[in-house]
This record gives sequence, C-alpha cells and structure tokens, in this order.
Amino acid sequence: MSRATELFNDSLRVINIGTSKFKDDLDLQNVESVQLDWRPPAGGNTQLIAALDFLQGNDQVEAANLEAITRIKDAHPYLIDIEQAIHVIPNMHKKKILHSGPPITWERMCGPAKGAIIGALIYEGLAKNEEAAENLAASGEIEFAPANEHSAVGPMAGIISPSMPVHVVENRTHGNRAYCTVNEGLGKVLRFGANSVEVIERLKWIETVFAPALKKALALTDGVDLKSITSQALHMGDECHNRNKAATSLFNREIIDYFLQTDLTKDVLREVIGFIRGNEHYFLNLSMPASKSALEAAQGIPYSSIVTTMARNGVDFGIRVSGLGENEWFTAPANLVKGLFFPGYSEEDAAPDLGDSAITETMGIGGFAMGGSPAIVQFVGGEVEDAIAYSEQMYEITAGENTNYSIPTLNFRGGAYGIDIRKVIETNVLPVINSGMAHKQAGIGQVGAGVVHPPVACFEQAMLAFANKYRGGDQHE
Amino acid sequence: MSRATELFNDSLRVINIGTSKFKDDLDLQNVESVQLDWRPPAGGNTQLIAALDFLQGNDQVEAANLEAITRIKDAHPYLIDIEQAIHVIPNMHKKKILHSGPPITWERMCGPAKGAIIGALIYEGLAKNEEAAENLAASGEIEFAPANEHSAVGPMAGIISPSMPVHVVENRTHGNRAYCTVNEGLGKVLRFGANSVEVIERLKWIETVFAPALKKALALTDGVDLKSITSQALHMGDECHNRNKAATSLFNREIIDYFLQTDLTKDVLREVIGFIRGNEHYFLNLSMPASKSALEAAQGIPYSSIVTTMARNGVDFGIRVSGLGENEWFTAPANLVKGLFFPGYSEEDAAPDLGDSAITETMGIGGFAMGGSPAIVQFVGGEVEDAIAYSEQMYEITAGENTNYSIPTLNFRGGAYGIDIRKVIETNVLPVINSGMAHKQAGIGQVGAGVVHPPVACFEQAMLAFANKYRGGDQHE
Repeated sequence: MSRATELFNDSLRVINIGTSKFKDDLDLQNVESVQLDWRPPAGGNTQLIAALDFLQGNDQVEAANLEAITRIKDAHPYLIDIEQAIHVIPNMHKKKILHSGPPITWERMCGPAKGAIIGALIYEGLAKNEEAAENLAASGEIEFAPANEHSAVGPMAGIISPSMPVHVVENRTHGNRAYCTVNEGLGKVLRFGANSVEVIERLKWIETVFAPALKKALALTDGVDLKSITSQALHMGDECHNRNKAATSLFNREIIDYFLQTDLTKDVLREVIGFIRGNEHYFLNLSMPASKSALEAAQGIPYSSIVTTMARNGVDFGIRVSGLGENEWFTAPANLVKGLFFPGYSEEDAAPDLGDSAITETMGIGGFAMGGSPAIVQFVGGEVEDAIAYSEQMYEITAGENTNYSIPTLNFRGGAYGIDIRKVIETNVLPVINSGMAHKQAGIGQVGAGVVHPPVACFEQAMLAFANKYRGGDQHE
Repeated sequence: MSRATELFNDSLRVINIGTSKFKDDLDLQNVESVQLDWRPPAGGNTQLIAALDFLQGNDQVEAANLEAITRIKDAHPYLIDIEQAIHVIPNMHKKKILHSGPPITWERMCGPAKGAIIGALIYEGLAKNEEAAENLAASGEIEFAPANEHSAVGPMAGIISPSMPVHVVENRTHGNRAYCTVNEGLGKVLRFGANSVEVIERLKWIETVFAPALKKALALTDGVDLKSITSQALHMGDECHNRNKAATSLFNREIIDYFLQTDLTKDVLREVIGFIRGNEHYFLNLSMPASKSALEAAQGIPYSSIVTTMARNGVDFGIRVSGLGENEWFTAPANLVKGLFFPGYSEEDAAPDLGDSAITETMGIGGFAMGGSPAIVQFVGGEVEDAIAYSEQMYEITAGENTNYSIPTLNFRGGAYGIDIRKVIETNVLPVINSGMAHKQAGIGQVGAGVVHPPVACFEQAMLAFANKYRGGDQHE
C-alpha cells in the first residue's frame, strides 16, 4: 500500500495551519481536527523577513544588546531632590510645555492633553481662562515637546510646565538624571485632562507647600533608594505601574523619619505626609523616572535592537530603539485600552492609549510584572491566570531576566526585560501594557483602566530602519 | 474466557493501596504499578471511626459549626488602647505570669520559656539576677497560667508579666476584648528566651516611652481597624503570621497621622515611629489578638466541632474546641519545626514548636494563607508551589471560606478557615502552621523558621471527648 493510499484509507487526524476555513469544512463533516494558532514570522512581510534574516544571530547585535540590558539592570536610581522644572530640566524655558508620547502639534493633540495644557497655562498665569489658554496654545507662542526628549516622563497627558516641581532621580551607576512631576491622586486631576479650580489649586499647593517640605526632607537623606523599594514592592503585590500601594507605603515609611528631622511644624507635616498617605499612586511618579533613568543609560548603543522608550500621546504610539537615533521615533496610531470602566462610562468615552507610563513596561515592570501582582486584575480586569500568562509571554520578546525585579508567582524568576524589536517581529507577540484611561474630551478625567498593546507598525518601521542603518554600513557581513 | 482467566492472561495494570510491599515486589518484576497514598479514616482506629460515624452529617453539629464560622468571620477587631497587663487583663495580679500554649508547670517548661520568665521577673523587679529569678520561679510563689485562658496571646514563649504593656483589641461585633504584648523585634528578644540587659532595657523603654506615646495616639483614633489592614495585607504578600511587612507598613501609615496630633516632641515621635518602622513583625502582635478576639467569640457553642485555639508551650501542643469546655485542653507532645536555620544552628538546637501564634492559623491566616504570600518561602523554606498547595489542602479540613481574607494566587478565593476536628480525623490532614524556632536553651534566641503540624493525638482526644459529651446527652438520635 503506497503512503498516499494509506493516508486516504486511514481515518484522518488533521492539524490545520493558517486560514481556519479548512477546519470549518472538516468540522461540518465531523472530522476531528486541531487549528494551530500560527502566523508566519513578521506577518509574512518579505522585507521584514529579509531584515530579520540579516539580524538574527548577528554577533554585533547580540553583544550590543547584552550591553544594553546590563546597563538597564545595573542602573541604580535614587530620589535626590524635588525642584521646579525650569530650574532642573535641560532646555526647559518659560514658554515650553512638555507632554507625553512622541512629538505632536497642538492641533493633533487628544482631548485630555489639550485639557491638561489649558490647565497648565492657567496654572502658570500665562492665561486667565480656558478660552485665552486655547488661543495661546494655538498661537504658536508656546513650544510643545515630548518629555521623553528631556530626560523626563509624565503619566497620561504627562504635562510638565516650567513652574511645576519635579522629582529629581539620579541613576548613580551611570550618572544621568530623570524627572517626573508629583502624582496628584485620583479623580479630577490634570494628567487625565481635568483643569477645574480645584485641580489648579492642588497644583499650586504642591508647588508652594508640598515640594518645599519634601525638598527639606530629601536634603537630609543620602537619596531614597528607588531600586530597593521597587524590588520589595514587586514581592508585595505591586507591579509599579497601576498598582503602587506597597511601594508608596514603603516610600512613606522611609521618608517620614527625615520629615521629622526638618523644622516643619507638625501641622505642615500632617498635611504633607497625609498627601502621600492618601494617594496610593504616589510612587508611580517615582517608578517612572526611575525606569527612565535606567533606560536612558542604555540609549545610543550602536547595533542594539533593544527598545528604550514606549510612549503614547493619545493619538500616536511611539517607540525608540537604543541603536537608532536618540530622537528617532517610530510611530503609529495608538490603540484603545481594553478593560474596566468606572460606572457611567464605556469604551466610547475613552481617549486612545495615553501617557509615558509605559516606560515601566519598557523597564520590565508594570504589565510585564503583573503576574506577581494578582490584585491588579481587580483594577484592570481579567483573571489572575491572565496576569501570570502575560508575564510569562514577555520572555518571548525580551533579551534578559532582571533578577533585581523578580516575580514571586513565577517562583521568583527574574522579570522579562529588554524588549528586542527582532523578537517582537519574529514572534508577533506585542509588549503588554496596563494603563489608566482618560475621557477623550478635555476637562473630564479618568474613566477606567485596562490592558493595551503597541501597534505592531512601530516595531516594523523600527526593524526596517535598523536593518537599513546597519546593513548599509556593514556590507562585509 | 472467564474474567479471572482474562485477568491472568492480560498484562497487569496495578494500583496498590496500603502497604507498599506489594508494589516493591512488582517493581522487582518490572511490572508497572501505582502506589495510592491512602490511609483509612481516623488511622483505622475503630473508636474514632464510631465517633466519626455518629458525628458526620449530624444536623446539630452542622448548625453549630455554621454559627461558629459566622461569628469568626463577622468579628471585627480594632486596636483601641495599650495599657499595662495588670490594669486590663482579667484576673491578672502582681505575682502572675502568663505563658503561651496549654497549662504547664515551671519544672516541665522548655528552655526559652524559662529564659523569658527569668527575664520577666528581673524586668518586674521581683528578682535581682538570674539565679534569684530561677529560685523564685521554682518556689511556687509565682502563679503561671496560659495567656489563652486570659483572653490573651503571646508569640513564642509568650510571656506576659503584670507591668508589660499590652495592645487592647476590641471585637466590636461581639463586644469581647483580646490582649497581646508589643513585638520586640528580631534578634535577642524575650519571646525567644533571651534575657540579657539589652532585652530588659528594651522592655523598660516599651513600658515607659513607647506605650505611653502609642496610648496618646490611639486615644485620638476611633480604633485602628485591624480587619481592614489584615485583608489588605493578604493581597500584599503577607500571611500575617511570619510575614507582616505590608501590614506593619499599613499600620504605620495609619497611626502616623494620630502621632502627629499628640503633644509628643518630634524627637520622641522619631524614636517611637522608628521603632515600628524598624520592626517588620510589629503587626504580628496585632494579628494575633485580632485572631484571638474573633475565635474567642466562637467559643462555647454547644455541638460545634470547630477548633478555637491551637497553642504550644514548647513541650505540649494543645487545642480547644468550641463545643467543649472553655479551658478543656487536648494536648500531646509538640513536634519539631522543619525549615531554614540561621547560620551556625541546626535542628538539634531548636526547641519544639512554641507559641500562641498558631492562633493565626486557627483564624485561617498564617500557614493557611501562605499560598498568597510567596515571599514567605524565603523565610520558612520550600517552594512557592508548596505554599500554594498548603493553602489548597486546608479546605479539606475546614468548614468555611473567609471572603474577607481572600487569597490572590487562588484567584481571590476566600481562605480556608474554621478547622473541624471531624474533618481532620476523617482525612488525616493536619493543619499547617509556619513558625519561628527558638533555641532550646534559655537565653539564646531565635535559630530559624519553618513549617510544623500539630500532633494528631490532640484531635483524636478532642474527637473522643466530643463524641462522649454529645452522644451521651443525645441518645434519642
């Protein structure tokens, strides 16, 4: 009996790869079959496959990536100061406003970003009311620029205006600094696009009461070790993006002794310590610049295909890659976040993916570490096993395991970190990000939280640019 | 072909139950077989099986147990005060010393308990030195009694002497109170049997500085909600017996605002808050009386076979049962703890299982909740999956699931609680306890931590007493 005859005489046991139509037919005929969830590498794009072929197993790329992930892991961020943006952020000036995500013009900005900028211009005293602020913003007199291009990061709208106090984080391993504003809490807050009187007043209080008090306390420390707090918090149910309860509590515990050594009155101390205590997301605005300071240390390594930035402005998602240009963004339209909505809101109300907080996922925490943070699913939706599956899946697209940031539920395996654009293209697996959601209109605020992925197009563009750059200059290989 | 012939002609597929000798023989003959880990209920003890037969599915027992677990779950403990034992613990007097575990005479006590009592007598000014203290303890002039018989609990040696300040915890649902000393920290401490000058001085500082300060702060609160802190901490990697890092941090966060409202100087505040901050086990001595206040509310329900106390004095392990006498202990020799030893120590150095802290497991936290506390394995040994398996196994011997105290890694399933002596006897599964280990000699201190079980004999005795009591008075069934 020939093999072919054998095949047709025997009962069929079918594994179907690719289009499911064949399986549908077999199902109709009651033939058992299995559908394999397979897609060709790089989605079958021949240009990308050629780039991948060239870059896979390339010794120079491997060595550069090892250098990149070593720097990211070895970075040691400390909170050393809090000071107004204009005094510490390089190239900041009185008419400059930093925003989250890749570059964008005022006209193209999303509602919450516009709302936050209007609030910031009023807060700065540059505009008397909303209308004046909108006119000023549209006039061209204000320079808008990505926080990420200024060693800074901001959650959601991510607005940093000149007078806003920013946490100053120093990466003592590599000597660079990163900056981030103070987290305002939940509810009506600037970063979600709200700009009412209470929002502006809170910003003023942060500037005039909170920041000077924290500055006094920080002056007495040798710096607050953010790496240590993050490492501990990851064993206490935080993933340090959307859950910062333990980290904030540990930070609070750490800083109080220094507050008590200042000349501040007990009333001021109550107010200031109470603000940190009352805001379980306080540490987000420390987790982000800590991550930023580590990733910026890994920027600019020739041949490295490791992602150093993922950021969203509510319109575009942008990434940057270590071995490509420092301000070379690869962008594509931002996705909508899938998750849980606050009562009264639905997906229709939400702006697309927004904020620099995906710097935490770029660092290998946040969504990447959510398997160690079961309680996060109560905030962003899904089951505990989904969270663990996300953390496990991220090993497929990363170059390293960060033993400093280990995941309890994975038996303390070092978290996946160092996103390699080659692996994303090869596997079609996209980084997972958990995120708050802002209302798409200016002035409203948060409507929910959930899980989102970058558009694959960012990685495809980066891959082609990377191959062009290094294949071009490297024809002998 | 008859079935018997069939059996002998076919190849054997063997499941062996009971003695493994048959399997050993088959192994020698290369016959595949599976050994089923099975033991008869009640270890085959016919008296116990008769008791079990009578009590299984008994409506009165079921109803009583439902009442017991409802009370345990509904209990709402608040920390309301701190005061010297003699002023608040019922029936305390100047020559009385409370200890952990079931009743025991001075002569039979373990080394660390003797060491701690010597320290307490010196601390009280009742003896000038170790020798005088030993003589006094042996003289019969001092009354020794279980803390558990005084609505109190103490970790390890569990010594409470009249002048020691105790946390006063009120169960506001049922109106009863429970008491526990202040946790001294790790290292050389009284509860592990150490009694050097530094130990006594720390106790004096707690009495004269710490407790008066905390009392002032507590007077400004409406009580600190210990149920809420425990519930949160269980989602932050604590199991609230041997890991209390998150709970202590949350307690610290809560109490600081009240400290700042007292008239205490900033220097005293630094000292006092620093003590809590520096001791990640501070909350153990709140978790324990919180558990005690809940379980005591469930004591004395006729027909209830739920365990209300598990406690060890380093010689005997004792349990008490809701439907049996309030001070009716069922005891057997305490086991040795299996786990991790501090450098320089081994199992030979350790005293047997010691302390009232198993009140946490009786409550359904501690070892019962360790599946939600992966980091605990770094302290007590084992793998994360072992910890999860323990938490899952405890459902076999408990009457309820406490949704107030849920376990993240079990997808937020309510923790197993309400140990039913019938189920322990039926399944041969013993409660799991994680525990510190004290050196067996007086005056040394902690040598490690690990996992331990009660001796099954405690449950066997309780089962027989229970059947005797209720079968006797209930012949119509």
